[in-house]
Amino acid sequence: MEKLQRNERISALQRIFCESPGKVFTLGSFTELLGCAKSSVSEDIDIIRDALEKSGMGTIETLTGASGGVRYIPLSDGEATKKLAEKLSAELSQSGRILPGGFIYMLDVIYDPETVSDIGRVFCSCFYKENIDYVITVETKGIPLAFVTARYLNVPLVIVRHYNTATDGASVNISYVSGSSRKIQSMVLSLRSLKRNSRLLFIDDFMKGGGTAKGILELAREFDCEVAGIGVLIQTAEPSRKLVENGFSLLTLYGVDEEKGITSIGPSVGRA
Amino acid sequence: MEKLQRNERISALQRIFCESPGKVFTLGSFTELLGCAKSSVSEDIDIIRDALEKSGMGTIETLTGASGGVRYIPLSDGEATKKLAEKLSAELSQSGRILPGGFIYMLDVIYDPETVSDIGRVFCSCFYKENIDYVITVETKGIPLAFVTARYLNVPLVIVRHYNTATDGASVNISYVSGSSRKIQSMVLSLRSLKRNSRLLFIDDFMKGGGTAKGILELAREFDCEVAGIGVLIQTAEPSRKLVENGFSLLTLYGVDEEKGITSIGPSVGRA
Repeated sequence: MEKLQRNERISALQRIFCESPGKVFTLGSFTELLGCAKSSVSEDIDIIRDALEKSGMGTIETLTGASGGVRYIPLSDGEATKKLAEKLSAELSQSGRILPGGFIYMLDVIYDPETVSDIGRVFCSCFYKENIDYVITVETKGIPLAFVTARYLNVPLVIVRHYNTATDGASVNISYVSGSSRKIQSMVLSLRSLKRNSRLLFIDDFMKGGGTAKGILELAREFDCEVAGIGVLIQTAEPSRKLVENGFSLLTLYGVDEEKGITSIGPSVGRA
Repeated sequence: MEKLQRNERISALQRIFCESPGKVFTLGSFTELLGCAKSSVSEDIDIIRDALEKSGMGTIETLTGASGGVRYIPLSDGEATKKLAEKLSAELSQSGRILPGGFIYMLDVIYDPETVSDIGRVFCSCFYKENIDYVITVETKGIPLAFVTARYLNVPLVIVRHYNTATDGASVNISYVSGSSRKIQSMVLSLRSLKRNSRLLFIDDFMKGGGTAKGILELAREFDCEVAGIGVLIQTAEPSRKLVENGFSLLTLYGVDEEKGITSIGPSVGRA
């Protein structure tokens, strides 16, 4: 590769970091790629770290030791998280979103790539210090959120299904009781999906009773894995005691008045 | 915001582009954010465009007219696409992946964030000129691929389900026949999901007979929409005549010999 100017190196480095969040790069790999000395790369990275931290959107972390190097951590600072929670609360409380049965239509929000990326950044901020090995979710609505979170944490995504399929291979099947509807459902996960003794982060779009999360805890046990974190976009205020503890939620749903067309939803209080 | 140096501006701009691929930014929005003149921003963007194009990983496109501005298009050049296709072929042809019935275990590949992002970049390169309004997929295995493609094209993702749920609201339900197994299945899509007269890109992990793709074509018709493109990770060589035409695939599966443990898979020939 021809020798690059500092400006071009910074552009290239910033792009590499953004496209492989969470991935550890050695300085050596950059000197080769960019054709310059370690000290120059090191200065370039300082500039990128400063710009990132000024924006409140992330940092470049330096890891020491044998597997050392640098990695980009996408973050959402307090102000950005608050603004996002307020924006989403306003959007989701529009009266036109109320569906029969007091449900809220939110597919357009939880499938919108930019919104999902912003929320994933919040989850990443909460959990990047937890040494997560996998992000796990249950099909279908939480998949985009879980995928972005896995991408930001640079770990594989695992999707639990409701039915077995031939392309899964041998699988573990458990039954669980939905916390709110008391309906019995199945969770199926391919045996090859998880390495034993892994730390899992469960991500979902919505938590009411916490039955699904409790099912994931049980499923994790069958794989000798531990659920090290739970992150949901919305949890309901009631029941206040969920079947699982210490879940993080960005938003809290206080209630939906179908008749009056009023949804009461807001940023969760006392978040991490 | 305090005045930034060129290096810092380039770092900030590159990050903004990478985090909002496909999104159109006016130069004015940057001059405000970075506190500098339009001419400086313009020069910064030239540097970023050059570095991007040298890497073969994308470009910054300038759009003229009333809704004009600049946007980042993530691309995968011929060489990168070839390398990716070869790497995936080698990985997926490992004998340990063969499942009973001649299926291939590939969940670890199609749920791996970095791999999925690389494949999404290929789909983006193929279809970014097609004025796509939505990326559409059918649950579950193609969702990560479809999500990344939607993110790179900066359009909403739409997920078709097999069963109706209360959180969808009113929905359209069609039956379709799986092209290979001749099984009748349902597709359900919320009525609110698509605006009429939109152009859809159908993304999936696997195509054998093309029955699912044909179902999407029919579903699109119910919404007065048009399927403007079809992209799959793998298509099978047989049947060579699919139920739909002009699909793009990165890989072609020629056959699986369960007894001998041999999978024959390679980069698709004659790709766009």
